[in-house]
Amino acid sequence: MTEKVGIVGIGHAKFGKRTDVTLRELAHEAVTPALVDAEINVKDIDASVIGVTSEEFAAQVSPAILVHDYVGIGNKPVFRVEAACATGSAAVRAGWSLVKSGLADVVLVVGVETMTHLGTPEATEVIARAGDTRWEYPFGATFPSYYALMAIAHMHKYGTTREQLSMVSVKNHMYGAMNPYAHIQKTITLEETMKSAMICHPLNLYDCCLISDGAAAVILASEEKAKRFSDTPVWLVGLGAASDTMMISERENLTELKATKTAAERAYRMAGITSSDVDVAVVHDCFTIAEIMAYEDLGFCKKGEGGKFIEEKQSYIGGKTPINVDGGLKSKGHPLGATGVSMTVEITKQLRDEAGKRQVKGAEIGLSHNVGEAGQYCFVHVYSR
Amino acid sequence: MTEKVGIVGIGHAKFGKRTDVTLRELAHEAVTPALVDAEINVKDIDASVIGVTSEEFAAQVSPAILVHDYVGIGNKPVFRVEAACATGSAAVRAGWSLVKSGLADVVLVVGVETMTHLGTPEATEVIARAGDTRWEYPFGATFPSYYALMAIAHMHKYGTTREQLSMVSVKNHMYGAMNPYAHIQKTITLEETMKSAMICHPLNLYDCCLISDGAAAVILASEEKAKRFSDTPVWLVGLGAASDTMMISERENLTELKATKTAAERAYRMAGITSSDVDVAVVHDCFTIAEIMAYEDLGFCKKGEGGKFIEEKQSYIGGKTPINVDGGLKSKGHPLGATGVSMTVEITKQLRDEAGKRQVKGAEIGLSHNVGEAGQYCFVHVYSR
Repeated sequence: MTEKVGIVGIGHAKFGKRTDVTLRELAHEAVTPALVDAEINVKDIDASVIGVTSEEFAAQVSPAILVHDYVGIGNKPVFRVEAACATGSAAVRAGWSLVKSGLADVVLVVGVETMTHLGTPEATEVIARAGDTRWEYPFGATFPSYYALMAIAHMHKYGTTREQLSMVSVKNHMYGAMNPYAHIQKTITLEETMKSAMICHPLNLYDCCLISDGAAAVILASEEKAKRFSDTPVWLVGLGAASDTMMISERENLTELKATKTAAERAYRMAGITSSDVDVAVVHDCFTIAEIMAYEDLGFCKKGEGGKFIEEKQSYIGGKTPINVDGGLKSKGHPLGATGVSMTVEITKQLRDEAGKRQVKGAEIGLSHNVGEAGQYCFVHVYSR
Repeated sequence: MTEKVGIVGIGHAKFGKRTDVTLRELAHEAVTPALVDAEINVKDIDASVIGVTSEEFAAQVSPAILVHDYVGIGNKPVFRVEAACATGSAAVRAGWSLVKSGLADVVLVVGVETMTHLGTPEATEVIARAGDTRWEYPFGATFPSYYALMAIAHMHKYGTTREQLSMVSVKNHMYGAMNPYAHIQKTITLEETMKSAMICHPLNLYDCCLISDGAAAVILASEEKAKRFSDTPVWLVGLGAASDTMMISERENLTELKATKTAAERAYRMAGITSSDVDVAVVHDCFTIAEIMAYEDLGFCKKGEGGKFIEEKQSYIGGKTPINVDGGLKSKGHPLGATGVSMTVEITKQLRDEAGKRQVKGAEIGLSHNVGEAGQYCFVHVYSR
């Protein structure tokens, strides 16, 4: 059985309004470069894990085999993994365990979602039904409103400001403008962000991530195969996951995501590191408040100091821990099933020193943090070169 | 890392028209007896894997955390696995790999689906959208029609008869009448079966499995924990999986499911057995022709002799290989996500000598065979006492 599991190939489709392609075609756009990157033939893939969040977006029940068949893997094992907005990272976790358990030597993990053919209200409604459809959803709860509650609680308890929330958005758009795969590649000013339309107080339009189409793919391999296929394998050395109550109304504390804290502890322990060892991270910024809570809950700063952390530019390149220098969900986009796999692609690039203008120099340890719903699911992965 | 993965707890809800409960309540009915059976506390569960096929049946996007939270597992990792009608077996495979890989020592696998609040045409339509929604589905293909094509091909090539198809149904109803968890617990005659309403030529009503609500749960554990929790662990010793073309129209041969043959080869090789070592099996009889093809494709008889196999009662208790003595999908019911987990429950009972009137005496090696769609997915598990 293999000691380590490595990432030997990465691929990324252009995120955005991709009405030019269907679900399977979009997946193909990510898989092909991943195979080229790993310099392997599709026949070398032993199994695939496909992450798609909702069958309703593409009107395709059971989309895994659709993608698996279209990209040409043939008669190998395939199943779909789903964990709401953390689907992609759950798929990476499942793929890792297939390799580590010996069921497969080389696994293709694909995350894909097509959402933009729905209007924003319709897409928001589908996502809202990931919340508890028997209790919270019928009373009008949507994900902007769940995170707005958290933002209000955080502002009240720690004095976090609207300006600090907006600063997260400014940073992520600045880096997203440098990422050719990002949905919206344009910088924004603090003033524009502060003045953007109110969505759900205190969250403005620019506090909310995008509804996007997109796909990303990674190829995982056993240690032996990884060393054969790649001169620069990146190792997945820590996997932490956790969950929390289905209903937000049952949470003790709205200023943190307990699942993030628990998943991070587990990932750090498995990797044998602490938060201060992390050189570069991607975190789940579905709303700006989510990134501020992630700074704290992942241990990059003390609880309550997330607002100060962004204000001091500690999450910029050159700061204490560069975060979401791929643009994050905010600017790169958030095609639900693709997001977690895209995170793995970005950290792999960073640890290979292939991120170009957005490169965090000398990064050796990376982290990805992917949240499902409003903290109901959380997956933290730690990577090492 | 653990050498073996064992089944230490099993639980089964009553399958049927369960409009008295919601999705999470039905899951709970399976999880509670599984915990009691394993004599463990829910706190001993390290992670869960939840199998639900369609978010549309229960109008709940991302149902995994709903179930995980409701049964009280707390902040442990959870994700959903889906592979159409083979969702339950895919979830067992994913759970096995979590244990074997060392990510968890004890994993709860739950399969659950609530379908009967929809009418049969509406449920059939949702299932039809598991087929290729861009090509075959728009032309009216549903799963009864896919399997009808296979039945016609099999009859044409091998002389399989309508009577032989009906005999599968008679057998499965006979055994289902002895299973207190089965949806329809009544015997039927060959004449009734032959005269039942035509659904899709040559398949009559009694050739088709049921649309049901149901749940099943199994607890998987590492070798050390399995020996601690159970005096009679059943070991999951062979896992084979395979897939096939998304479109039926691309298949070379409609008289077999290639994914079954490939998955079986892989499972037998991993377990170090041949088909003749199998003492008891559950196979995917979504339609009677599917059970006949499974006899052949799993190697219990030669290709083309499946009709003769049932006619000679070789798949009854006392025959060569007793098959679906729990009633199968035909009589026990087919709540999509639950079916594969229910199969694991039945084989575990058989290998523990706890199947009562339906017991295959002295069974030491068992097999479960679960197909997704019309052979797009297949999972074969081999079990040993």
